[in-house]
Amino acid sequence: MTDREQIVDLIRQNKQFYLFSHMLPDGDSIGSLLAMGEALTAMGKEIKMYTPGHIPHKYSFLKGAELVGHTAIEGKSDWISIVLDSSDADRLSIFKEAALTSNVLVNIDHHVTNQRYGTLNLVDSEASATGEIVYTLIRELGPEITVTMAESLYVAISTDTGSFKYDNTTPFTHEVVADLLRYGLSPGTISQRIFDERPRSFYILLKEALSSLEFYQGGDIAIMTLSRDLRERSGATTDDLDGIVNYTRNIEGVELGILFYVDSAEEVKVGFRSKTLDVSDLAGRLNGGGHVRAAGCRLHGGYEEVKAQVMREALELYRELPAR
Amino acid sequence: MTDREQIVDLIRQNKQFYLFSHMLPDGDSIGSLLAMGEALTAMGKEIKMYTPGHIPHKYSFLKGAELVGHTAIEGKSDWISIVLDSSDADRLSIFKEAALTSNVLVNIDHHVTNQRYGTLNLVDSEASATGEIVYTLIRELGPEITVTMAESLYVAISTDTGSFKYDNTTPFTHEVVADLLRYGLSPGTISQRIFDERPRSFYILLKEALSSLEFYQGGDIAIMTLSRDLRERSGATTDDLDGIVNYTRNIEGVELGILFYVDSAEEVKVGFRSKTLDVSDLAGRLNGGGHVRAAGCRLHGGYEEVKAQVMREALELYRELPAR
Repeated sequence: MTDREQIVDLIRQNKQFYLFSHMLPDGDSIGSLLAMGEALTAMGKEIKMYTPGHIPHKYSFLKGAELVGHTAIEGKSDWISIVLDSSDADRLSIFKEAALTSNVLVNIDHHVTNQRYGTLNLVDSEASATGEIVYTLIRELGPEITVTMAESLYVAISTDTGSFKYDNTTPFTHEVVADLLRYGLSPGTISQRIFDERPRSFYILLKEALSSLEFYQGGDIAIMTLSRDLRERSGATTDDLDGIVNYTRNIEGVELGILFYVDSAEEVKVGFRSKTLDVSDLAGRLNGGGHVRAAGCRLHGGYEEVKAQVMREALELYRELPAR
Repeated sequence: MTDREQIVDLIRQNKQFYLFSHMLPDGDSIGSLLAMGEALTAMGKEIKMYTPGHIPHKYSFLKGAELVGHTAIEGKSDWISIVLDSSDADRLSIFKEAALTSNVLVNIDHHVTNQRYGTLNLVDSEASATGEIVYTLIRELGPEITVTMAESLYVAISTDTGSFKYDNTTPFTHEVVADLLRYGLSPGTISQRIFDERPRSFYILLKEALSSLEFYQGGDIAIMTLSRDLRERSGATTDDLDGIVNYTRNIEGVELGILFYVDSAEEVKVGFRSKTLDVSDLAGRLNGGGHVRAAGCRLHGGYEEVKAQVMREALELYRELPAR
């Protein structure tokens, strides 16, 4: 029997399940967790759901969000645990030990880097989102899909594909979503909430950020600068900073986008975005880290000093590149 | 025979076609025009394509974009013309007379406000985009779908649905796109180009627009104002105006977003966006038109006069609403 077949049998034949998803919860981890939880409940199972860290406000409307536990628990050796969307057990943070203590650990994920840490592993790196895998499982397990289950799965898939814009979006992704829409969810209401809507203060801060735009290297590098003072005068919160840096990369011709956020006279936070450059490398040289196209660091020093240091490294990185 | 059946017969039995789409070309008008043009060419037809106004740069990669004529022509009474995505003949601008002179005028559209001005009318207001209707026609007519045809149809559908975020997105929309993706197009490359990437001048204009933000009705209505003078000083083109209005709707708590663009001392263009209100109704009261959540009009008069007129109608619409 394949792991998938064993997982289906295991769920059918048992009554109690502990569901976990990863820290820094995102649309896929939350949506997959809640859809799986609702489906198992509809099958008459008893479930408990846990995720390290609070659920972002924009996902709090999903059914069952208020049932998710966030405080550490003791695991038991007779548990069946299902871990969703987590490439390794460390991503479970305070729930890692509890999950690993389980009699059976079911690992359901779509990350290509998944460490196969489960007793049973259902890992499909072709799936655009863990939500896509959970959808196929629910279809196989048989409970009727409700509008709220469909919403959770829609949020899972649409967030991990950037509303179907990313190259991980496949024909199957769209087929799944075609089916989900039949259960009566409103893509407009959900998308507005999870993708487009920002508080007023975000736009005031964005205006300030756009006012500070500077270009280097003939337009290849775009820089924006904000300060704590400017942010506070805008009425914006630190949450509002999230997403501002993306505007640098979305400028035509820009390869590397940088946001300097002057947090105090002694510290500057720096965000990097790129179209093709490896900015995790750049951030690494400055004792930061992150992903290939999105990274950051935090540097001690005044603005002018930090900016000079960052620009030196950025231009260095450029010189090392083959001519483009 | 239905109009649709007659259109299919007409295309099969004739050789020469004139294809038109509307002024201020958008992704759906351009994508539908080019996909239809490529499909008819693949069927051995001779076609000419026209659109009033140049094709925005971000759509210029689509196959056949360079073949589209933009200068006025004389119509002939033996023509068969196919008009795409145009709710009324006025939207053809300099091509209106040529199209109306035709022996047969085929009107293919998805706007609920379509005036049925064709000899034959294929109007499906349930379709998310005219591109969705063109897809079904191409499937029925039989030419093999190529990757370039699929790209044009993808652009048509994804732009008119805001990358599948709007409520006009149906299960069928996703089914069509599932099929289009099988022809090998890259949703990532296309979406970065048509949605995310904008020229520098767009961001400069956006900064000006954000600086002009005003709120009415306790924050329910957000207004931005730009002028031709401001646009020209920003180095922005009229293309850059496209998309600015969406920022009004994306502010938390805003129900109705309005962008006033003062084109001259005598004319103001007005764009409307909403979350739930029917702005096609609002635009209609002002001799404009559009969709339920995105519409616009063009009014004669100075800024203050036009703004007062628009605000009067907008507040009227509010008064007619049941309490919210």
